[in-house]
Amino acid sequence: MIVFLNGQFVPEEEAVVSVFDRGFLYGDGLFETMRIFRGRPFRWAAHMERLERGAEFLRIAPPIHAEALRAAADELVARNQMQEALLRLTLSRGVGPRGYSPAGAVHPTLAMSLHPAPLTDRRNPPRWRLVTASFRLPANEPIAQFKTCNKLPQILARAQADVAGADEALLLNTDGFVVEASSSNLFWIDDEGVATAPLPSGVLAGVTRGVVWEICGGLGLAVREACVTPEQLRLPRGVFLSLSSVGVAEAVSLDGHDLSLSPNVDRIRDGYDTLTSAESL
Amino acid sequence: MIVFLNGQFVPEEEAVVSVFDRGFLYGDGLFETMRIFRGRPFRWAAHMERLERGAEFLRIAPPIHAEALRAAADELVARNQMQEALLRLTLSRGVGPRGYSPAGAVHPTLAMSLHPAPLTDRRNPPRWRLVTASFRLPANEPIAQFKTCNKLPQILARAQADVAGADEALLLNTDGFVVEASSSNLFWIDDEGVATAPLPSGVLAGVTRGVVWEICGGLGLAVREACVTPEQLRLPRGVFLSLSSVGVAEAVSLDGHDLSLSPNVDRIRDGYDTLTSAESL
Repeated sequence: MIVFLNGQFVPEEEAVVSVFDRGFLYGDGLFETMRIFRGRPFRWAAHMERLERGAEFLRIAPPIHAEALRAAADELVARNQMQEALLRLTLSRGVGPRGYSPAGAVHPTLAMSLHPAPLTDRRNPPRWRLVTASFRLPANEPIAQFKTCNKLPQILARAQADVAGADEALLLNTDGFVVEASSSNLFWIDDEGVATAPLPSGVLAGVTRGVVWEICGGLGLAVREACVTPEQLRLPRGVFLSLSSVGVAEAVSLDGHDLSLSPNVDRIRDGYDTLTSAESL
Repeated sequence: MIVFLNGQFVPEEEAVVSVFDRGFLYGDGLFETMRIFRGRPFRWAAHMERLERGAEFLRIAPPIHAEALRAAADELVARNQMQEALLRLTLSRGVGPRGYSPAGAVHPTLAMSLHPAPLTDRRNPPRWRLVTASFRLPANEPIAQFKTCNKLPQILARAQADVAGADEALLLNTDGFVVEASSSNLFWIDDEGVATAPLPSGVLAGVTRGVVWEICGGLGLAVREACVTPEQLRLPRGVFLSLSSVGVAEAVSLDGHDLSLSPNVDRIRDGYDTLTSAESL
């Protein structure tokens, strides 16, 4: 496996950073994970737009121009001969003086690597069991909008799902409302249409969340933002998750309670598959 | 500079971790920073106790026994000939399968490094200007008790202090109460004695916080836990911060408002200096 690190293509064993990199010390960085279909990153521009907004928020200057970064991503795919993959991009603040102040850390680290894409089978689409995690995200915090390298709440939530034998964990915010799942955004379907949690509640603005929103529009399904508790989430006609790696996954149970299944979830997933196929031609 | 990394003493340039280390990917780890006085770590046992509780909480098995770790710390001090220093210890979950689930990541990374101690002058003790940061910590979250490698709220808070020309930033929790400063615990003095924020409010249980509590007891000053807003914090007779690197720092202003100074802060700082001298003999 070849990794792109700070402008160089290096073997995996040489893809290392200093123990003084602030990414390692404090999680002081951002990342993106995107799906490569037929050798091309899906919705590259949307991922880059989020990365750039995050970098501006954290005041980390990306060390490479957008066009050169895209060229490097394409070369990474070619060198590794992985046409179907996940691309992980990490941008950390790099090494700086000791302490939390970012002042003086002016050489960011940028790494890109490829990973096998999860196997999906259209005849046997993902159906996930969910549990509500005990860890909560702060409501109304701007940091949550960005895909930062501070992921312990998500990791601990996911570990709770593992222990419960579930596939994904829901995270609540400090107001008690469902925000998202550990690595996916949440949608539910009711009489009014499709709903998802509002961004200020602590939602990471997922690229696939935006794609699902588009697809629902195309299918004539109204999408709105709303706050619900985990108990209220047992009532809708269908619940599903969106994530770059898998696309759309229907939720079949929450905290041991069966959820209703909806043919609309199948329509949305079909829409996602059609879109990804069309854009990667 | 020599760094201790996964059982080896290596030159700083060779102190590197994989870009796939979960510490770098997600901030999936813990750390401790402790003061070395006359070649000996101050309150080593208290730092180790917090590290062990955090490792149990995150389910990261430390790769080295407590006695061997202490021996390594002593050897690190000796090899670097730094009798007055800060020791940073990082324990990350290491490399594992892709994704948030910690399952399968079974080779943690452990690094220790030394850094110059901040210069302090007893005749000219630290007097810090504070600002209230806009970033908030989730109230009543157990993760906050541990010194994890998820430090973006503290980094962004500290950056706001830098921009304001201040020395430290106060962080509020989602209930609107003052929790702590970016890298220090907060105390204030009023008619009832000395007060500090309660642990459940989101406080990192600082080792120096515990030491200050002891010292106040020895001086006959009652210590209690209480919640205050930043506005209420302008009223007390004295406000100070506690941190391993510096000990006790008096706060002279908050958000541009002068704070009252208290001779009791000088007594507590003298108590801290006496204690550290006695324990490092």
